[in-house]
Amino acid sequence: MRACVMREGRLVVDEVSDPRPGPGQLLVRTLACGICGSDLHFLRYAPTLVDLSVQLSTSLGDLAPMLAPAIDLNRDIIMGHEFCAEVLEAGPDTAGPDPGTPVVSVPVLLSDKGVSQLAYNNDFPGGFSERFILSAPFALPVPNGLEPRIAALTEPLAVGVHAVEAAAMTKGHSACVVGCGPVGLAVIAALKLKGVEMIVASDFSPARRSHAKALGATEVVDPKEEPLLEAWRRLDGRSQLVCFEAVGVPGILDELTRDAPLASTIVIVGVCMEPDTTRPFFASAKELCLKYVFAYTPEEFARTLRHLAEGEVDVSAMITGSVDLEGTPGAFDELAHPDNHVKILVEPTGG
Amino acid sequence: MRACVMREGRLVVDEVSDPRPGPGQLLVRTLACGICGSDLHFLRYAPTLVDLSVQLSTSLGDLAPMLAPAIDLNRDIIMGHEFCAEVLEAGPDTAGPDPGTPVVSVPVLLSDKGVSQLAYNNDFPGGFSERFILSAPFALPVPNGLEPRIAALTEPLAVGVHAVEAAAMTKGHSACVVGCGPVGLAVIAALKLKGVEMIVASDFSPARRSHAKALGATEVVDPKEEPLLEAWRRLDGRSQLVCFEAVGVPGILDELTRDAPLASTIVIVGVCMEPDTTRPFFASAKELCLKYVFAYTPEEFARTLRHLAEGEVDVSAMITGSVDLEGTPGAFDELAHPDNHVKILVEPTGG
Repeated sequence: MRACVMREGRLVVDEVSDPRPGPGQLLVRTLACGICGSDLHFLRYAPTLVDLSVQLSTSLGDLAPMLAPAIDLNRDIIMGHEFCAEVLEAGPDTAGPDPGTPVVSVPVLLSDKGVSQLAYNNDFPGGFSERFILSAPFALPVPNGLEPRIAALTEPLAVGVHAVEAAAMTKGHSACVVGCGPVGLAVIAALKLKGVEMIVASDFSPARRSHAKALGATEVVDPKEEPLLEAWRRLDGRSQLVCFEAVGVPGILDELTRDAPLASTIVIVGVCMEPDTTRPFFASAKELCLKYVFAYTPEEFARTLRHLAEGEVDVSAMITGSVDLEGTPGAFDELAHPDNHVKILVEPTGG
Repeated sequence: MRACVMREGRLVVDEVSDPRPGPGQLLVRTLACGICGSDLHFLRYAPTLVDLSVQLSTSLGDLAPMLAPAIDLNRDIIMGHEFCAEVLEAGPDTAGPDPGTPVVSVPVLLSDKGVSQLAYNNDFPGGFSERFILSAPFALPVPNGLEPRIAALTEPLAVGVHAVEAAAMTKGHSACVVGCGPVGLAVIAALKLKGVEMIVASDFSPARRSHAKALGATEVVDPKEEPLLEAWRRLDGRSQLVCFEAVGVPGILDELTRDAPLASTIVIVGVCMEPDTTRPFFASAKELCLKYVFAYTPEEFARTLRHLAEGEVDVSAMITGSVDLEGTPGAFDELAHPDNHVKILVEPTGG
């Protein structure tokens, strides 16, 4: 089959061997698979990421093989974990959705190698391929005739749902969201689902600001014109605040800790791959709580799919582009300067 | 009266004007006043601290005058906020403990200038002086004939009590404590009070390690011999862990986030006055929660005094030295290399 392969630090489109489902597994056909900021990170920072993962693997104990897997960067890797796929066939002795069923899944695979991450892995391809393997128990049929392109947004939206859950917000809380890329927009959508009424967001890009507004942000500012926390003080300034850091570049957290109000919470959703310098005095003097979040629980993932299928949130405008496998490397290049893009979907077989 | 004054960035002992209590205030005589790490910080980093306070003052709103007061470093400052003092007289129309009563108080003063921090302040002296002013409503009589030298430890111990409260620990939790200076030891004492059974601590100083052991740490390691989290894994490695950062120098948090287990909490009690660089990927990948804590509530302060007065915790071994006002500048110098010291008390009038 054809796939977009990460090989020697670059993306190439090539023929690779066909995956074959084992017991408990499904062979699926990719319908749509979003390109994630993590994929861009992985392409750019893979050696750093492998090194950091080795450094923290002792601290993970038994979970190290899943959470910090050994990845050989000299071997092919096929990314793509924000997918909606169609079941083609089940492996031996495997119960699961019928062939033809569109499904989504958390990007985790059970196999004779144990529990693996799908997509950041030498052994199993992700969704930037014509076909790949899922674990039957994790495959959730897409309900209500939800479009596969929208179902593919389950994964990134679940990241927002998880971040908002971590903040334990009630209706009395207000929110600031730094950055309106896919992660920030997912947080805004999740805040609306949670019933949070005051959502102030910021982004340098006018296109992204208008997406944030459409998803329900109360006000979206250009930080060159008005600092985010200043806008929040103008609009509210009184209620308990949770700030969501959805950018993941050095320097943001130092500003946020300087400007956040006393005793507020900062939920860090953006994954910063470089060392970051802050002045800890700001967080100490104000007793800030910094919650770092990552991914989501299977329950949050399933709940997010239901939110989408029941039309409780409309994230279709987040899809700003679509490419086939041949167009995938170019889409990565384009997303490196993402002013006009939010989410580009890879549709290897025409959706 | 005589006082140890911070003047032009140095400590000098000099005659200063006698304080006079206004309405709602008490004139007190210092019995014992501990030298705090914050005092050392202030002496060393005052210009930085004033600059950082200005930077965050907008974020504090109405509380800025109390939490980030304008301090003029060209004027005298008399520090000392870990005090036990004897009431000499009450101001006009003021009800309060009788003259002769030993009292402690949160270091906050109400006056016609509003709410002020005691001790880091141009207008009101702290306890490194013969006499100073307290707010009558905050003055707590020292019960049970508790020695003033021990009562003076209420304030630093309350810092530990507050840090442990912030972690919301139950008996199932275990704790790691980085650093066994006054703050780390206060945390260990508070953990024992809370009933936490597994407390693993680390410090380079043998003297401090033995203090930690005496206060109830399960095991105390020299990090040159065995890294703290490795010791915890050897002794426990399973229960939910809270790590307490009680050092406050750059580099510690990066190590802690690298080594802490999945989904653990790091309570940051040590105040780091310099910029600090971390690799945020560690905290993100493990969904760590970083709680920065500072000081204590008035309730925690009062509760800590009761713990001491009822003999529920014995922190007397933390007192490793005593000086009069003339000896105070030298004691600051000595504490800059604190291997053998924990807490030095200033006893201006012989206690």
